[in-house]
Amino acid sequence: METSTALLTDHYELTMVDAALKAGTANRRSMFELFARRLSGARRYGVVAGTGRLLEAIRNFRFGDTELEYLRANRVVNDDTLDWLANFQFNGNIWGYAEGDVFFPGSPLITVEASFAEGVLLETLALSILNSDSAVATAASRMVHSAAGKPLAEMGSRRTSERTAVAAARAAYIAGFSATSNLEAGRSYGIPTMGTAAHSFTLLHDSEREAFEAQVAALGTDTTLLVDTYDIDEGVRTAIEVAGTGLGAVRIDSGDLPVVVARVRRLLDDLGATNTRITVTNDLDEYTVAALAASPVDSFGVGTSVVVGSGTPTMGMVYKLVARQDDAGEWVSVAKKSQDKASVGGRKSVRRSFNAKGVATAERIYLGDGPDGATEGADTDGREVLVPLILDGAEQPGHTGHDGIAAARERHRERVRELPAVAMSLTRGDPAIPTEYR
Amino acid sequence: METSTALLTDHYELTMVDAALKAGTANRRSMFELFARRLSGARRYGVVAGTGRLLEAIRNFRFGDTELEYLRANRVVNDDTLDWLANFQFNGNIWGYAEGDVFFPGSPLITVEASFAEGVLLETLALSILNSDSAVATAASRMVHSAAGKPLAEMGSRRTSERTAVAAARAAYIAGFSATSNLEAGRSYGIPTMGTAAHSFTLLHDSEREAFEAQVAALGTDTTLLVDTYDIDEGVRTAIEVAGTGLGAVRIDSGDLPVVVARVRRLLDDLGATNTRITVTNDLDEYTVAALAASPVDSFGVGTSVVVGSGTPTMGMVYKLVARQDDAGEWVSVAKKSQDKASVGGRKSVRRSFNAKGVATAERIYLGDGPDGATEGADTDGREVLVPLILDGAEQPGHTGHDGIAAARERHRERVRELPAVAMSLTRGDPAIPTEYR
Repeated sequence: METSTALLTDHYELTMVDAALKAGTANRRSMFELFARRLSGARRYGVVAGTGRLLEAIRNFRFGDTELEYLRANRVVNDDTLDWLANFQFNGNIWGYAEGDVFFPGSPLITVEASFAEGVLLETLALSILNSDSAVATAASRMVHSAAGKPLAEMGSRRTSERTAVAAARAAYIAGFSATSNLEAGRSYGIPTMGTAAHSFTLLHDSEREAFEAQVAALGTDTTLLVDTYDIDEGVRTAIEVAGTGLGAVRIDSGDLPVVVARVRRLLDDLGATNTRITVTNDLDEYTVAALAASPVDSFGVGTSVVVGSGTPTMGMVYKLVARQDDAGEWVSVAKKSQDKASVGGRKSVRRSFNAKGVATAERIYLGDGPDGATEGADTDGREVLVPLILDGAEQPGHTGHDGIAAARERHRERVRELPAVAMSLTRGDPAIPTEYR
Repeated sequence: METSTALLTDHYELTMVDAALKAGTANRRSMFELFARRLSGARRYGVVAGTGRLLEAIRNFRFGDTELEYLRANRVVNDDTLDWLANFQFNGNIWGYAEGDVFFPGSPLITVEASFAEGVLLETLALSILNSDSAVATAASRMVHSAAGKPLAEMGSRRTSERTAVAAARAAYIAGFSATSNLEAGRSYGIPTMGTAAHSFTLLHDSEREAFEAQVAALGTDTTLLVDTYDIDEGVRTAIEVAGTGLGAVRIDSGDLPVVVARVRRLLDDLGATNTRITVTNDLDEYTVAALAASPVDSFGVGTSVVVGSGTPTMGMVYKLVARQDDAGEWVSVAKKSQDKASVGGRKSVRRSFNAKGVATAERIYLGDGPDGATEGADTDGREVLVPLILDGAEQPGHTGHDGIAAARERHRERVRELPAVAMSLTRGDPAIPTEYR
């Protein structure tokens, strides 16, 4: 699908391009930075997600006839600007945190170096994708830790907008979920999908037994039977009678889970179904998953809480001009001076430092005035965090498509393991490691 | 854009169709209901939004080669089911609350009467759209009331996923917002768009004065100048010096707004710019908008809080089978018996009752067993709430496109005015009118 993404942006970006072109300032080389001033929800770390989707969206950030005609008819910009937009293609540089990495307050998740007009056009698109996807991934990562190695499936499509659902499934997978219920996420991103039946399937049939028989006939005995439509114990007995002790799993979607799960496990064992697994799906979040750590649950299905970021549906990231060239081609560091929204001007480089045991100790941000200035004062301790994403308009390999997702998932697994133990706390608090400006 | 919506659904819907086709139960006539058990966030009323988008999505709910090939390659369903899906087109009936109307706990927002297979396939798509759009509209409606007649613009695209942003702009507009910053919402839905410049535009230029001169040169003196990049008072003086006393508006995006706005109004008046308006955009929600009621603010720009439903990003709606025919063609009312998730079986009709002054007093839901049973016992007091949306597969006119949006916006204005005064309370509490089952 090559739909243009060029109008997934705010009106004022176009009027700024319009005014800057007229004023002769549109081509001033500029540096924009996408960052979060704090970790929303007082999380201990954030998870970068959406980078691959952003690169794919930038490929399609082109103004075709449909887009230009809308802008013309509604007089959003003047004719000269329409001509400029018709030829627009992003030709700048973008560096950023690689997808799946962790981040902290002030981390420059994306740095865009381009003409002002090119850079400003990407503001809303970049923020939409990263704010939303990172909120999901950040919540999902906590759930993965709470599940202590047991698999989690993302099942929240119904509780978020239909296209966001697809992106949310992708973000949760990068953060360590094993599968999704969303078929479009399977098709678009190659994520494993799963699901068997809802209560309506049981209610469709004249009895729970007939429903189970129909499901086993179609999907085999390794399927998962939903046992809580009427009485859970009765449902479990019927399930084993129908499918035999080789039944794959039973799903429980209601009740006081720690109590119910323990009882169902005993019942399954008594019936000889010792290998039949138990999956639970009742309004789970990182806290209720953690509370089930000692229960004989084999897997979790998480819905609402993961797709809405478990109380933090957006990460509060902003996109700011931090430096630009003057007419003489000299870089000038710039920053808004408003008391409550100060930002730190200039281009940054970032190194994550570690102690002798390999545990992360700080996120060091080195300030500079220009594209090279940042690295001059940087020492060589720790790991360089930023990677090139687009250079002179050319997308760098490894960040998009199925390969990019697999790499991001593996990267997340490694990076989160390097964090100090406090990072895994579910309580609100300070970031797991400090951000230090050098 | 005629992209298929058929995979914007959960895996288990396809496996249920698969199993029901094999069992011979897929064609049992069924009645599904979409409703919310409670009003999320302890709101006093909900606002229906997304109905028009759902109807448009159902038009494109077709399985083409791309979708069928994915399902085949991943063995989601068997070959007979693939053939059935290839010919699928929704041919059932859908009744529902008209878009823009208000709703309460238990309100049957959508009732789908179709074969089980047809009805179950729409579950996730319908929930995704209505849960998300209604959450935005419900929050937006409260903000519109708080603004007490002053215009609100939706500017939250950057704080929600890029396609959700477009739907959110539409939902906020239906709830009474005047405009959006989102250009795609302008193009797709005909919603007025607005915006002028961000702080980056000021920072691009060598001085605030040069930035203002550039903006006024391109956009005219009726533009809105953003005055808080450096010092607000200085910014206001420069703005009037550059644009003259005919300047359209100044925008303030930071600071203690009630104090700052009063000072800026006095300053503008002292400078002779008595007609220059003040617009504010600093992390507003229904509470901060209400707190500015006595301030000389002329318009509001609302971002994050409206697109994430102001603390309630999803409405918790569910989609349940409530009745189905047996083999003899008799309707059987069905309901899940789980203690904490009981639902009320059977088809409903709904009438909203009013007192002599025209104030709504109750949402009366009449229970029935079949498609006609519901209305038999109903009295004729009040207003019939449900309208036909699709009959025998044919979309009923007036609910989609630009006309549908305009009608929904007008409907919302009228319906919210009929609610008792308590509906406008911003505190958490009981629904404004009770839901009565008859």
